[in-house]
Amino acid sequence: MKRLVLALDVYERERALEIARETSDYLWAIKVNWPLILGAGLDVIKELKETANVPLIADLKLADIPNTNRLIAGKVFEAGADYVIVHGFTGRDSVNAVKELGEVIIVVEMSHPGAEEFIQPVADGLIKLANDVRPFGVIAPATRPERISYIRSKLRDGIKILTPGVGAQGGSAKKALEAGADYVIVGRSIYESKNPREKARKFHEELMGAI
Amino acid sequence: MKRLVLALDVYERERALEIARETSDYLWAIKVNWPLILGAGLDVIKELKETANVPLIADLKLADIPNTNRLIAGKVFEAGADYVIVHGFTGRDSVNAVKELGEVIIVVEMSHPGAEEFIQPVADGLIKLANDVRPFGVIAPATRPERISYIRSKLRDGIKILTPGVGAQGGSAKKALEAGADYVIVGRSIYESKNPREKARKFHEELMGAI
Repeated sequence: MKRLVLALDVYERERALEIARETSDYLWAIKVNWPLILGAGLDVIKELKETANVPLIADLKLADIPNTNRLIAGKVFEAGADYVIVHGFTGRDSVNAVKELGEVIIVVEMSHPGAEEFIQPVADGLIKLANDVRPFGVIAPATRPERISYIRSKLRDGIKILTPGVGAQGGSAKKALEAGADYVIVGRSIYESKNPREKARKFHEELMGAI
Repeated sequence: MKRLVLALDVYERERALEIARETSDYLWAIKVNWPLILGAGLDVIKELKETANVPLIADLKLADIPNTNRLIAGKVFEAGADYVIVHGFTGRDSVNAVKELGEVIIVVEMSHPGAEEFIQPVADGLIKLANDVRPFGVIAPATRPERISYIRSKLRDGIKILTPGVGAQGGSAKKALEAGADYVIVGRSIYESKNPREKARKFHEELMGAI
């Protein structure tokens, strides 16, 4: 059972593939965002999957009307993505438009200061939306483990919690799992390391020790 | 003074360029979304600008943390976009990260049913955010002209209102301008028409008559 997700936020195709190859033994999945897709093209999704042989999460943070969400997600699932990250904020029709095409992961909380303005005040509503829609999982930051515990206590059984913010942003992988997270997303601490494979191995072992 | 924006939601590069060429005499700007960028590549932005010689709006609906918004918008401004559409609900730091790189247009209201869940209840907060951040403009749907009037009454002078929902979605171009919109965004009614140029001319004349 692996619980580590690599946030592969490098922007050159060759470098992305190299890190994916080096670290894949310790990963549950790889997460890519728009900058890599823009820089390397949609085909990078399939190439990463073939290189690392792990599930691929497309972190699109979709937040458009249902039809546009559907068009975007359609192209990205077609390219080989296994999971697409969508915002709950734009409402359940926009989320369901993506869920009809494949597995979704819903953002229910974010960690940057601006999240306090509009997102945190409706966190309960976003959790309820997730419980109704029944996605594969939700995103909630590891920088505040007490929020992971809270979300876990409110979330329907079977919906996974994926948690970014570990490593460079200060969150602890072990504490995130203890608080109820299922998967821990690590980026810079691995891909900016001189030895990404070794770093991924350490996170993997820390996570295994925490269970 | 032109007030018509073409929402160029076709997904083949050749077709997009053809419609841009045919209609450009009547356009203030062209708006593109992710599906065209994914289908045709980022270069389509520069090609459209060279073909139509009008400003280009990239409707990315950005809704990520400041650093990721910055990385995505950086690539799209570099590709030639003049304006980038961002969500206000991810907070002012996420919006400002894009505004540091170029002109932004902030979503303060959406027209799909799911917008009633989280976005409409915070419309006043999103308008206030826009007044603080001072973007080029805001997006508000033409399907409810009374909301355009309301937003106009709350919005700082000089911030433009761009309004989608005209034509296929039932909004009236003339009523949207009368309610206080500055630019009207039309998609399907033009690009699905047998004669996109003639259709664009008619919208242009309707808009000129409304001023």
